[in-house]
Parts: sequence; C-alpha cells; structure tokens
Amino acid sequence: MEAVVIRRGENSPTVAELSRPDPGPGEVLVRTLRVGVDGTDREVIAGSHGGYPEGEDFLVLGHEAVGVVAEANGTAFEEGDVVVPTVRRPPAEGPNEYFERGEPDMAPPEACVERGIDGAHGFMAEYFTSPAENLVPVPEEIAEWGFLVEPISISEKAIEHAYAARSAFDWNPDAGLVLGNGSLGLLTLAMLDQRGYDRTYCLGRRDRPDPTIDVIEDLGATYVDSRETPVSEIADAHEPMDFVYEATGYARHAFECIEALAPAGVGALLGVPEPWEFEIDGGRLHKEFVMNNKALVGSVNSNVTHFEAAVRTLGDLPAWFLDDLVTAVYELDDYEAAFADDETTIKTALQFSQI
Amino acid sequence: MEAVVIRRGENSPTVAELSRPDPGPGEVLVRTLRVGVDGTDREVIAGSHGGYPEGEDFLVLGHEAVGVVAEANGTAFEEGDVVVPTVRRPPAEGPNEYFERGEPDMAPPEACVERGIDGAHGFMAEYFTSPAENLVPVPEEIAEWGFLVEPISISEKAIEHAYAARSAFDWNPDAGLVLGNGSLGLLTLAMLDQRGYDRTYCLGRRDRPDPTIDVIEDLGATYVDSRETPVSEIADAHEPMDFVYEATGYARHAFECIEALAPAGVGALLGVPEPWEFEIDGGRLHKEFVMNNKALVGSVNSNVTHFEAAVRTLGDLPAWFLDDLVTAVYELDDYEAAFADDETTIKTALQFSQI
Repeated sequence: MEAVVIRRGENSPTVAELSRPDPGPGEVLVRTLRVGVDGTDREVIAGSHGGYPEGEDFLVLGHEAVGVVAEANGTAFEEGDVVVPTVRRPPAEGPNEYFERGEPDMAPPEACVERGIDGAHGFMAEYFTSPAENLVPVPEEIAEWGFLVEPISISEKAIEHAYAARSAFDWNPDAGLVLGNGSLGLLTLAMLDQRGYDRTYCLGRRDRPDPTIDVIEDLGATYVDSRETPVSEIADAHEPMDFVYEATGYARHAFECIEALAPAGVGALLGVPEPWEFEIDGGRLHKEFVMNNKALVGSVNSNVTHFEAAVRTLGDLPAWFLDDLVTAVYELDDYEAAFADDETTIKTALQFSQI
Repeated sequence: MEAVVIRRGENSPTVAELSRPDPGPGEVLVRTLRVGVDGTDREVIAGSHGGYPEGEDFLVLGHEAVGVVAEANGTAFEEGDVVVPTVRRPPAEGPNEYFERGEPDMAPPEACVERGIDGAHGFMAEYFTSPAENLVPVPEEIAEWGFLVEPISISEKAIEHAYAARSAFDWNPDAGLVLGNGSLGLLTLAMLDQRGYDRTYCLGRRDRPDPTIDVIEDLGATYVDSRETPVSEIADAHEPMDFVYEATGYARHAFECIEALAPAGVGALLGVPEPWEFEIDGGRLHKEFVMNNKALVGSVNSNVTHFEAAVRTLGDLPAWFLDDLVTAVYELDDYEAAFADDETTIKTALQFSQI
C-alpha cells in the first residue's frame, strides 16, 4: 500500500510503498478515507517537533484521520463503521497510569508516543491498524469531515479544562478571543459561537482580502489585526475577554493575554514555541493576575471523551463554515499540494479512498 | 472607644478616640476580642496598598478580627456569640452582582471596598459593626485563635480554585510547595498537611536558627533556602511539585513556579507585587506549560463559604502549631509592638478584650 512519509535527513514528504499492516489481537484494520494536514505536520516535516519511531529511518505522517473499518477482527466494531483514531499510544515499555485511566492526554511527553508526530507511525497510508479502544465512531453523514474530529477534540479538551478552572464560582463568559486565525483558531471560534458567546474576536496578521478574515466575519466575529492592536491593548481597544484561546505559539501571547482577560477570566494556552528570552513587566502581570482572580491553563492533546464531544460538535457546525474552512482535498497523486501553505489555504486534507 | 488608625501623611499607626458605632438595620454590634496583624497591614501603613475611606483623613486598621456579639440588634445572632467578619463590602454606589451572589471575592478591586485595607474602616477598635450576613460564627473553644480565620480563608479559596482547575481529570497531588515562610505560608503548609500531602516543602531565605524553619520542620516539611535553591531548580533538587502556593509577592516566582510544577500541576498565585520588568525565557516556559498541561490560578480575598471552611480547618490545627505560629498577643497599650517585624516574630495580634 502507499503511504506518505518523511525520511530521516529529508525536509519534504515522499510516497513510500509499505506492506499493509495486519491487525493484532484487539486491533482493527481501518481503510483510510481522509487525513488532515496541520501546522504540527509541517513542524514534523521541518524536524522542529516530534521524532521517528525507534530504529526506523522514516515516519508515516498524519494524525488527523478518518477511515472505515475494513477488518473488525473480533472487536465490537463492524466492517463499514466510520471511525476516527486518537493519537497517543503507550511508549515502548508499555501502558502506564495515564493510559490505564483513559487520560493519555495528561501524560508527560516521555510517557507516550504520538502517531504521525512522535515515535509512532501515523495514518497517511491506505490502511492503518489501531486498538479498538482508540477508535471513536463517527456518523456516516459527516464522514467526509471526519478528519476535523481530532483538531476539534484538541479544543474540546482545552475548553473543558479552562471552564473547570472557573467552576468554583458563578462564571458566565460572553466575550471570547481566539489568538490565531489558522484552521484550529477558526474551528475554535466556531465552537465559541456554538457555546453561546455574545461577542467573539479572532486575532491574526493578514491583510484583506483574506479567506480567514472572511470566515471570521461570516461567523459574526471581529477580526483583530495584531499589527494594529497588540494583545496587550485588546481589552482597551475592544473589551476585556472572559476567555482567551491561544493558538499562535507566539510566546509573548502566553503572558500578554493576562492583560486581555476580564476579571475572573481564563486563558487556554496551546502553542508550543521554541525557547525565546524576552522582557515582561512581570510585577504588573503578576499583580493583575492575582487582584482579578485570573487563570491560565496549558492544554495538549485530547482523550476519547474529547473525541466523542468533537464528533457531536462537528455534527452541529454549519455546512458553509466547513466548506469555507476546508479549502482543498487532494488525491494521493497530488500529495505535495496538501502540505503547501499560502494565503489562500486554510485547511487541506489528503484523500486515500472514498466511502 | 479606642481604635488603632493610620492617618493620611503618617507612616506609623496611632491610637485614636472614636465614638462607639451604632448598628444600623440588619447590623450587629461586635465587641472586639483580637485582631491579627499581617503583611497587608504593613503595606497599608507604608501607603503601598489600599486607601482611605472617601472623605476621611484616617483609616481604622485591621482586617483579621474575632469578636463577641454585643448587640444582636434583631438579627439571627445572640449576644455572646463569637464571630469573625469578612473583609469586602459594597462600594459607595451600593451592592453589585458579586455581592448579590455571595461572591464579593470575585469582584474586581473597583467593585468593592475592603475593611481595614481599602476604602473602609477596619476592626482594630474596641467595637465594630457589621451586617449580620458578613459575620461567620466561631466555636467559643477556638475564640482565642479566631483572628486566624481570615488568613486561613484566603488559602481555602486559593486551594479551592486551584483544585477546581484540576477537576477535569484524575488528580491526586502528593508533593506540595509553599513559596514564603511568613505566617500565611506556614498556615498553608499546615493545611497541606491536613489534606494528606505526602511531602511538603516551604521556601524562605532565612538562616538557622529561625522560628519559621522550626515550624516548617516540626510540620514534617522540608525547608528550601531560596539563596541556595532558586524556584527554577526545585524540581531537580527535590522533586516536581503537584501544587505550588505562592505567597511571596516576588514576581519572578509567579513565572518560575511553572518550572517547579510536575506534569498536570497547578500553581496558586497570591502575591501582589509592584511593577517590575525582567527577562524570562518565555518560549521555554510557554512550551513547558502547554506540553505538561500545567495551570496557574490567581486568587485574592475570600467569601463566607471560605470563612466557614476556615473555621473547620482552624479547629483541626494542632495546638502546638498555633502556639508556635502566634509569637505574641499584645494589649492595646503595647500596640506598636504588634506591628514590629523581626526575625523572632511570626504572627502577632492585638487584644482589645477577653471573652
């Protein structure tokens, strides 16, 4: 079967011919429908994030997959079921407490591998296998968008944890800000809309005309150009935000967002920047954080419960939004185009087969 | 009646002769037993925190009080009941949403006044009045320590909010670190002990022999000298901490504590520093915060539910600990001594009357 891989020492993906995997006990063979591409894939390709499976000189890419059960192999699934795989798997030495309690998303990086990212092959292949417990069913009607379940699940977790941090008192957020107008930022903006935020904002650094600004405005949100209004000035220029979701990986935002928050507000941080030293007014930020009961929550990955929530969320997203968000779906012949990133691209996917 | 006040333009408290207050409708007249002194009082005296009641040129000090109901004034209290007052009251324009839902601790600073601190007279007087709803009953057996209910309530809230931030997953903290060996730090260290932490640590910058180090070690905790082991090195030198409680007001600690936290750990920040610019490796801290699902929660003040929890906590604290923590209780004649702070002082109180 064909698979899209990155080889050690190379900086662009290629197509490799691999043997079709055989499902082991408790595993399901999945025929891949589509696999989404995101910023993490580009970091893995560039070598700035993740790593190869032990002893191998290539990594099958892809962690945002949707497929169809080809061999149920005695599990509770049936052939033809549409499924989405989770990303984290136990490390070489076997499952640990995080996996045992169904919370691999809370494992530190060294206590897991991540399929398609770090230490385990991903899903950009005609077939893949997965333990049944790591597959989440998806209604067939939304199978074509199923590759969005994984990124949505990332925000389901971040929002769940941020809201938990505000659960000790009466908190009714109505102004929300997403930092970053990439596909994850736009998905999250739509999720805030679903959750009944009165006013939403999305920060980017693009000139009009731009397809992401169109999506932001079609969602009824306000586009904030960070070149005109830095994060530290958003509270004054617009309003203080009850919830801030950081998806830029720009480290200054992790600290400046304290100033963008309303009293009792919470920021969810998801970016993974490189080391970078800079100056902050730490005294002022610390005081502001305390005197106004603010909170910050770091969030990475997601578990089965977040994938299940993401399936429900996906089913409720408006069709026009999904159409506008996914700017192209490429066949394997054209795989290189799926990894390109330009001003007209928002979200792409690679199609391996059809339902 | 006599009261301890700070006058505009002065930098040490004096005793003033004031008229005994009359309780208004719904208010109780309380005969003061004892009022604790803490770092906030010293900041108010120095003029670096808080402010005078509007139109007045003095402020009655004190926010950590315990007293006896002298006139129940038709409320549900009875004369002789031992009570502790909460600190926040509605601002001049009257109650707002935070007071209406019993959460004045979540109000931004401009939406409240604070008795003895900011904009309202405190409790360092022979009598004070308070709305009955702002008084929490205390068992007579622990009346002598009742002035510790307010500081304990501050930590009850901070711990409640920090734990809420970890409530979306299975979290079982067993290593806890308190930054600061002042009286609030030591009270919190004892509270972590009560909550079943296996290992606790307390950071200070004092040489032995020192009474706070004795209390730390008598609690079974490990003293960490910040001059030898900075916060950023504690995880390596000792162990990563599930919970960090910051009570130093040293702004670097607010950010360095990210490095002291274990995966899925949470830091509660309580210090109120002045503006101070410094350099951090914001990229590394941001990545660490996200990849290990860490959280930070700012916490200020406390509400009636936290005072009620604090009364229960106080009743369970060992007698030796309270004896060692409270290094002196002074009569009004000797009020200046209560505000002094030296290497042999941990916690002091002023005594206005006895039960």
